Amino acid sequence: MAGLIGLDWGTSSLRAYRYDGTGRIAETRARPWGIRQLPAGGYDAALADITAGWPALPRLACGMVGSRGGWREAPYLDLPADVARLGDALAGLRAADGMDVHLVPGLRDPDGPDVMRGEETQLLGALALQPELAAASSFILPGTHSKWAVVRDGAVCGFRTRMTGELFAVLRQHSILGATGVEADDDDAAFERGVAAARDSGAAGALGRLFSARALMLDGALAPASVSDYLSGLLVGEEFRAALADGLARRDTPLQLIGDAALCERYRRAAALFDIDLPPPVQDAAARGLWRIAVQAGIVSEEIHAC
Amino acid sequence: MAGLIGLDWGTSSLRAYRYDGTGRIAETRARPWGIRQLPAGGYDAALADITAGWPALPRLACGMVGSRGGWREAPYLDLPADVARLGDALAGLRAADGMDVHLVPGLRDPDGPDVMRGEETQLLGALALQPELAAASSFILPGTHSKWAVVRDGAVCGFRTRMTGELFAVLRQHSILGATGVEADDDDAAFERGVAAARDSGAAGALGRLFSARALMLDGALAPASVSDYLSGLLVGEEFRAALADGLARRDTPLQLIGDAALCERYRRAAALFDIDLPPPVQDAAARGLWRIAVQAGIVSEEIHAC
Repeated sequence: MAGLIGLDWGTSSLRAYRYDGTGRIAETRARPWGIRQLPAGGYDAALADITAGWPALPRLACGMVGSRGGWREAPYLDLPADVARLGDALAGLRAADGMDVHLVPGLRDPDGPDVMRGEETQLLGALALQPELAAASSFILPGTHSKWAVVRDGAVCGFRTRMTGELFAVLRQHSILGATGVEADDDDAAFERGVAAARDSGAAGALGRLFSARALMLDGALAPASVSDYLSGLLVGEEFRAALADGLARRDTPLQLIGDAALCERYRRAAALFDIDLPPPVQDAAARGLWRIAVQAGIVSEEIHAC
Repeated sequence: MAGLIGLDWGTSSLRAYRYDGTGRIAETRARPWGIRQLPAGGYDAALADITAGWPALPRLACGMVGSRGGWREAPYLDLPADVARLGDALAGLRAADGMDVHLVPGLRDPDGPDVMRGEETQLLGALALQPELAAASSFILPGTHSKWAVVRDGAVCGFRTRMTGELFAVLRQHSILGATGVEADDDDAAFERGVAAARDSGAAGALGRLFSARALMLDGALAPASVSDYLSGLLVGEEFRAALADGLARRDTPLQLIGDAALCERYRRAAALFDIDLPPPVQDAAARGLWRIAVQAGIVSEEIHAC
């Protein structure tokens, strides 16, 4: 039987895709077993469980499972990286069930230096789904550690990690910006006000505007319950301001989101304040990327549909 | 008996100065009784203790004691603010001992908005000590919430709060940048490398470089024990980069530090990487500012030394 099992295995979650021989996803499963919260029995037990009842198919995994602290390290591949170079650079291990698990390497930008692991597979998946972006485009992958990536001629040729999600969380939980005395309310206007403050911060940038979230509150100009959305807008807006300043995003090149719909929607609203009309995010990019890399590496051969 | 008791009363500490009639400091005392950690008996007990045995002199206090959450609120005074306007804007309260405590208001920059409380007294003290800076200068007051202030014609005419110290602490204690697995070591070269990374980040700014502290470590290019100093350099360097970008500091205007000697020394080292030669910090600025404001407000009259 032809097909593939793809594993998107991160720090806090594990998703498995079973593909038929044409690359169609026949079944998807999810477990909370990120590499920091494995079940008893570790990686082998997690793999056995999430693939229980599935046929013995080739297996390809991306994400933190291939990091130094993961199952086995798949060393970073230096940029530029297209699907051919990634397909040639897979690492592998023999699981307890006697079969191989192939591992997609992360990418390293020597100019940062900067690293990504997992996002490279989403980027190649997005290019497979939207091949018109392969010539020249930029991508945003929002999250705890947001990535902004530049693609030229089908290859990832530069990227930057921004700690937006983590920074937001630690500032809200542990800094004076979280000391509002009230629960946060959704406030779209406060979010957009934060985006605008970042946009208008000029070359000085929005890091020096963090305290405005508190000063506006003390001033009675921002409701305590809205400080959270203002801060979120400030940090997301700063991503756009900085990316436009250093060329990670360009107004003459398509910009595309990849990721969770609700989070991406915030980025679309922020983009609008920069006069950028962002299309809806690419869905299932990791699943598509795993298949694409597996085909490239010869782990599976794509069947032609019988018509 | 002529003289004054000056109180520098912040969030985490209380300092008291007893001045003779000429403004000379006859005695200084310090207690850990910031407004968040008062002794039993509260403000009155703290005041009675720190002034025990001192004569009944007029009392002037600056700092968070005059904030909304303090002993009594001394409302912010809008910029521009010189010693005359501050001296006219004192608030006051009657303590349990039956005598007044005068309170210096904080300052509000309506353009931020931004606020300071306590630093205004240090700024006026620094101008009293170094009157040659009154015409045109910028000041840095490093700390948990660093302030950069612009002085023109003897008045504070603009300022910006930067959360450098607090940001450094929360990132080290609660983010992945603290997850180095080792104790931090002093590493001047790592500090300077961080400063240079901020300086060279251009208009994009150093917020997007935070993750480099981790990426360099993963890359083997930064020792885990040096991540802390690199991050410190990045954040301090970003203060200089941004201040030069938005005019809070200008290369044609004197720039002066006020504050703790060890912390200020880090700022001097950072400044050197921007080709700015910062003189040693102003000492005892708060004490000098309290006296200056008290004289201006007529709380004390300065005696002329008998020669």
